[in-house]
Amino acid sequence: MLVKHYSKIRSASIHICRNLKTEDFVAQPEIFISPPKWHLAHTTWFFEQFALVPNKKGYKLFNNKFPFLFNSYYETIGERIPRNKRGTLTRPEIDEILNYRRYVDAEMIILLDGKINKELFNIINLGLQHEQQHQELLITDIKFILGNNPLFPNYHNFINHQLELDTVKPLNFLAMKEGNYEIGFNEEKGFCFDNELGNHKVFLHEFQISNRLITNSEYQEFIIDEGYTNHKLWLADGWNWIKENRIDAPLYWHQKDDDWFQYTLNGLEKINPTAPVTHVSYYEAEAFARWKNKRLPTEFEWETACKKNENKIPKAANLANNEYYEPAPAKTNQFYGDCWEWTSSAYLPYPFYKKSDGALGEYNGKFMINQMVLRGGSCATPADHIRATYRNFFYPHERWQFTGIRLAEHL
Amino acid sequence: MLVKHYSKIRSASIHICRNLKTEDFVAQPEIFISPPKWHLAHTTWFFEQFALVPNKKGYKLFNNKFPFLFNSYYETIGERIPRNKRGTLTRPEIDEILNYRRYVDAEMIILLDGKINKELFNIINLGLQHEQQHQELLITDIKFILGNNPLFPNYHNFINHQLELDTVKPLNFLAMKEGNYEIGFNEEKGFCFDNELGNHKVFLHEFQISNRLITNSEYQEFIIDEGYTNHKLWLADGWNWIKENRIDAPLYWHQKDDDWFQYTLNGLEKINPTAPVTHVSYYEAEAFARWKNKRLPTEFEWETACKKNENKIPKAANLANNEYYEPAPAKTNQFYGDCWEWTSSAYLPYPFYKKSDGALGEYNGKFMINQMVLRGGSCATPADHIRATYRNFFYPHERWQFTGIRLAEHL
Amino acid sequence: MLVKHYSKIRSASIHICRNLKTEDFVAQPEIFISPPKWHLAHTTWFFEQFALVPNKKGYKLFNNKFPFLFNSYYETIGERIPRNKRGTLTRPEIDEILNYRRYVDAEMIILLDGKINKELFNIINLGLQHEQQHQELLITDIKFILGNNPLFPNYHNFINHQLELDTVKPLNFLAMKEGNYEIGFNEEKGFCFDNELGNHKVFLHEFQISNRLITNSEYQEFIIDEGYTNHKLWLADGWNWIKENRIDAPLYWHQKDDDWFQYTLNGLEKINPTAPVTHVSYYEAEAFARWKNKRLPTEFEWETACKKNENKIPKAANLANNEYYEPAPAKTNQFYGDCWEWTSSAYLPYPFYKKSDGALGEYNGKFMINQMVLRGGSCATPADHIRATYRNFFYPHERWQFTGIRLAEHL
Amino acid sequence: MLVKHYSKIRSASIHICRNLKTEDFVAQPEIFISPPKWHLAHTTWFFEQFALVPNKKGYKLFNNKFPFLFNSYYETIGERIPRNKRGTLTRPEIDEILNYRRYVDAEMIILLDGKINKELFNIINLGLQHEQQHQELLITDIKFILGNNPLFPNYHNFINHQLELDTVKPLNFLAMKEGNYEIGFNEEKGFCFDNELGNHKVFLHEFQISNRLITNSEYQEFIIDEGYTNHKLWLADGWNWIKENRIDAPLYWHQKDDDWFQYTLNGLEKINPTAPVTHVSYYEAEAFARWKNKRLPTEFEWETACKKNENKIPKAANLANNEYYEPAPAKTNQFYGDCWEWTSSAYLPYPFYKKSDGALGEYNGKFMINQMVLRGGSCATPADHIRATYRNFFYPHERWQFTGIRLAEHL
Repeated sequence: MLVKHYSKIRSASIHICRNLKTEDFVAQPEIFISPPKWHLAHTTWFFEQFALVPNKKGYKLFNNKFPFLFNSYYETIGERIPRNKRGTLTRPEIDEILNYRRYVDAEMIILLDGKINKELFNIINLGLQHEQQHQELLITDIKFILGNNPLFPNYHNFINHQLELDTVKPLNFLAMKEGNYEIGFNEEKGFCFDNELGNHKVFLHEFQISNRLITNSEYQEFIIDEGYTNHKLWLADGWNWIKENRIDAPLYWHQKDDDWFQYTLNGLEKINPTAPVTHVSYYEAEAFARWKNKRLPTEFEWETACKKNENKIPKAANLANNEYYEPAPAKTNQFYGDCWEWTSSAYLPYPFYKKSDGALGEYNGKFMINQMVLRGGSCATPADHIRATYRNFFYPHERWQFTGIRLAEHL
Repeated sequence: MLVKHYSKIRSASIHICRNLKTEDFVAQPEIFISPPKWHLAHTTWFFEQFALVPNKKGYKLFNNKFPFLFNSYYETIGERIPRNKRGTLTRPEIDEILNYRRYVDAEMIILLDGKINKELFNIINLGLQHEQQHQELLITDIKFILGNNPLFPNYHNFINHQLELDTVKPLNFLAMKEGNYEIGFNEEKGFCFDNELGNHKVFLHEFQISNRLITNSEYQEFIIDEGYTNHKLWLADGWNWIKENRIDAPLYWHQKDDDWFQYTLNGLEKINPTAPVTHVSYYEAEAFARWKNKRLPTEFEWETACKKNENKIPKAANLANNEYYEPAPAKTNQFYGDCWEWTSSAYLPYPFYKKSDGALGEYNGKFMINQMVLRGGSCATPADHIRATYRNFFYPHERWQFTGIRLAEHL
Repeated sequence: MLVKHYSKIRSASIHICRNLKTEDFVAQPEIFISPPKWHLAHTTWFFEQFALVPNKKGYKLFNNKFPFLFNSYYETIGERIPRNKRGTLTRPEIDEILNYRRYVDAEMIILLDGKINKELFNIINLGLQHEQQHQELLITDIKFILGNNPLFPNYHNFINHQLELDTVKPLNFLAMKEGNYEIGFNEEKGFCFDNELGNHKVFLHEFQISNRLITNSEYQEFIIDEGYTNHKLWLADGWNWIKENRIDAPLYWHQKDDDWFQYTLNGLEKINPTAPVTHVSYYEAEAFARWKNKRLPTEFEWETACKKNENKIPKAANLANNEYYEPAPAKTNQFYGDCWEWTSSAYLPYPFYKKSDGALGEYNGKFMINQMVLRGGSCATPADHIRATYRNFFYPHERWQFTGIRLAEHL
Repeated sequence: MLVKHYSKIRSASIHICRNLKTEDFVAQPEIFISPPKWHLAHTTWFFEQFALVPNKKGYKLFNNKFPFLFNSYYETIGERIPRNKRGTLTRPEIDEILNYRRYVDAEMIILLDGKINKELFNIINLGLQHEQQHQELLITDIKFILGNNPLFPNYHNFINHQLELDTVKPLNFLAMKEGNYEIGFNEEKGFCFDNELGNHKVFLHEFQISNRLITNSEYQEFIIDEGYTNHKLWLADGWNWIKENRIDAPLYWHQKDDDWFQYTLNGLEKINPTAPVTHVSYYEAEAFARWKNKRLPTEFEWETACKKNENKIPKAANLANNEYYEPAPAKTNQFYGDCWEWTSSAYLPYPFYKKSDGALGEYNGKFMINQMVLRGGSCATPADHIRATYRNFFYPHERWQFTGIRLAEHL
């Protein structure tokens, strides 16, 4: 069972790369992007380092320089190449990294065949969740690599008629009553990250939250209304950010003559007015909400509204299993998929949060500053990887993930 | 009455500068520091711009280039010199700025003599609160200018025997029950900033909070225990920050042979073991708390504990009226004065927060991102400027304010 | 004839890349490095832009976005991607660039079959010289890409027993009389760059110049004598450069225990004591010369000594046709090959220098500032590309070329 | 005699500062500017360090932290504050620095009263020449501090009718024959810097050099002809420099409506069409010359033409003793004063150059890279400080000195 699960998730990473040219595996156009071959090696190193080395007697590293090359940020493990140098490594070549994956997978399958205690099970499970997180990053990093190339090469040629939609329902608001609500992961079964634990109560005043994401067409109105040049709409740090980076539209948007185009994994296309706006920073999401005389929901509002309206992930949710990898026209009353939704909550520990011991204690806790929480998963999130309590987090200026906007307000 | 209040607060700014040499008024050693003469002019510009220009018929600007020089960050008002150029302005010289102050004060006194409607009253009051905020900045910026000079000149020669204390009481914890608490300013009378409004309820789980601030001696134990080289104690952004800036002690600390010295406004002195540690960043406060197996309180925990324990500001509080301008040995059960206390809360709008219209809407709201809340006032805060609901905010790496550490934990 | 010459030179570029993995074609580890596939495309664009477009009727660009991607620095031609983004372009993939080369080569061969006027001949000849310059850059850039990879992959496995040498002859000096000398290219036949024209006279005082290059072993003595920490030996800009970049040895040198190793295209090897030191900056060359109580020769001294001692390029010279691509043990009385030799002359126009018209006027002239002249060619220079009057030039801190040291002094 | 000379030169530094406000002594608006009080202290430290400490028995440093504060770049002497921190030092205040000057002067006068050997004489003489160099820097740094203040305060109110001139004579060229010329200082008496020694011969081809400097009015034609946007006129490094710094006119030029204004020490004034253009970088001078189909002279051409045309400094030369401190309308056949003239020669050692021993060996030699030679002195150069062989040097982008343009060409 676990073997099957392991193999399925591991092969999904390879599947995402099926359309890449060898050259695409190498580049790191910005420091926050990792080359696809680095992702494939790093996720493998994770199993080697945390599962095989401590648990498999006589295990021999595939290459004893790989920990230096493929450790991401674990200070406990030791020195590693600076993050901004990942794109300088033309070797090991992708074939060698595939050998590395095969080597580690073969060893892992032997390990999984044996007795797995609780602790090891948790590590392997974490490794698989980690691999799924990198699957999402693979998609968004590939999009960045191809989408910033002046040739605008497409990744695939995807048509899904079910996802087409000419109109979206009007923006409405779902009412939520005031009261004390339970927050955080509290299931008996199933996986969650440590940052979802510390199950606790919060008091929420009465509020309402929009029934769907903001569309490209709604966002274009903000642009037309000169949202990007009206300082009153912006946080000071956001205003500086758009000035310094000359930002006047979401990432991947290009204006030609009077039309707006958007790079998608299908290539450069006209903006789809019914699709949710995506690749916006927190600053843009926040400015848009202010322009609408609304605000972004807190992560607590989002979680309670989600739990009330969708107690499980609907089949129709546009998640990575669709293989569309772009937000589909905005559906109503749906909290999962399409875009990660910026919340107005800073990413901070829950009241009873406990960091794990050892290197894996570095997984989540040390990032709990300067970032904002996003909820709900996106078109690049594996369907079995998201849940109502899942806390994603990015810096407020980052926007190469599939990020979108849901509005809220007090009554 | 208002005239008297105005004059008293305005002259307090000059009083703070009484010990400065003319040269001290000019320098801006780092971008976050403003030259003292800039503070004196900027606070004056605030009254000119927001009170006199719109309300006094025929008012003539003292110098029509001054808005360009002394506007801080009001985009609504227009262009201004870049912040990092404030220290390049040798003119207007301090005498001319004192003339500017006299000119504006004379006009203000005439204005205050006349009929003051509610709106104008609020603006003037805001101007005075603003002046008091800059009085605190004057003190901390003067300390930075003198304290980073290799000659370590002292600002004054202050002795206050009442503030001396050889021992401090043991660190204990004050228990607080779980429940829904009211947060924010809710008085019928008195001033508050807009960021304290939006009075609302929060649920708090049972917790306890320390009865006093952490002392220098307690902080030295953290240093001795190699707190600055143990990555497990640090947030990732904090760890990068100490590595890049080679930080191994609070600001103004200097190690000579085996002793630690600290620059104070009295000059370079041996560390006082009983005084609260100050000039620490959020990162250092947070790492210290983790080392102690505790955490920092949220701003809501702080406010409820403060309201419960000290319903008004005690006379003994070490605030700016002492003119000591350094934290005094840590007293117990006291929430005001000595050091601004880092909380674990990000500076974000309260649920019902409304930004003001016009330029003054830029006063607070646009800074509600990327900063952390501090509470309680410091030895540089005017005594009539602080209250239980006051929200101060700085970036997590900043430490030239009098910042300190109070601990908390859940039970 | 010209067709054959064209094909031979064009195929030499491909030959250099024969050992590369596809991944190696992509990376740009520093801004001064270009990805190998960029070199292959850029040299092709040069023929397309300057030979085919103006001279071949109805010529159709292979891809109309390629000028934007592969123009290096010709402002006359138009916009182009910023230099530091060359390594972000995973597309066009290497196969597509090879198609581009084949397409342009086929068109060029048709063009070369027709009537070639003098002007077109000169452009084609310049294109071929340009291709040879990029062949040298291909070798040095490949070395940088592989040599900065922690895996130290080798490029080839080259053994040339003729190049082995256990001892070198002692360092001696060749005397040159004072007098007026002719400088610059003055042949009736053959190619030279415009920067060699402006044939003119210079007066030289009596001097002597060393009979060979400085060896690794001689340079190690400089290191052992603490040359890198003795400020008296260094130019101020050089001293700042070694401090900021923590430089304590030539590029590619690595100290393990007490031994020095050097990355070569054969992989990481022990320093060869008899080979000329290479990959040193002007600053290092100049400091070494001062330590020896000597100086570097001027480019005029070098040229007159070379013309006197070697009136043509000797067969034994270690140039790129050896395919060794590393300096071979230092031979005496030889001015060509092994290493480009830093001269103490700034790269400035000769007295009668005339910049060409049009885009090709940007080829050399606009770089005549802030750089130093190097002479003699290196182990990566094609044998038919070098001559006594050839002026190479680099910034004084650059050292990824095969740069070496020859000494001189006045008598 | 020497005492008198010493006192005269020392007091001239104070005289230059007579118009400054105390505040003006403090600021360092850019790293290449030093605060006026720093200049006054540094020149004093020079005498203390190099004359008093080694030669006066029992000499006691005025303040033992001053070497750390006022050493400029002498690595031999030891650690010092980073150059970019000079403007952060509000203390020692100017009064204390004047005390320092008086203290050192008193000690120096005692020393000068005693027996002065040749070596000490040379050091003192160097100290005085050094002081004169800083007098020029005082003027140009004061101009920068006041001229970059949006208030454009004037330094003085200077009227000199003798310097007024409504027309200038036409630009003509002085012919020089080809031949071998002597270069460098070769007098039996008088002072020169070590960089002028190494008297040697150069061969010059026949050339001609312009009879006066280029005027503002001539330079305006270059601007009107879009010289700043025509890349063909520029060196590549210069083109990047004007793009990055958005440069479209000389330093201190301001366009209002259709008129050009220039900040002078008299305040903001209309451009004087007959005055020489000044505050241009090498890049601008070189581009202007190319636009004129001329070139800049080499330093050797300049020196030989100067020696031929003006064998001594004319009384009419506009040097610092005029106290005008701005270039006066361009006179013909005059090589001294008004503006330092950019030459096309890189600042490199003369053939027989020998660096001095000890700390004073750092005076000139270590700067012989990356800079260009300027000749002739300026309106801010003391009249007894300039000579035909004097080599000044600055980086090609620097232009806060009084730099100007003289043209040359081969025949």
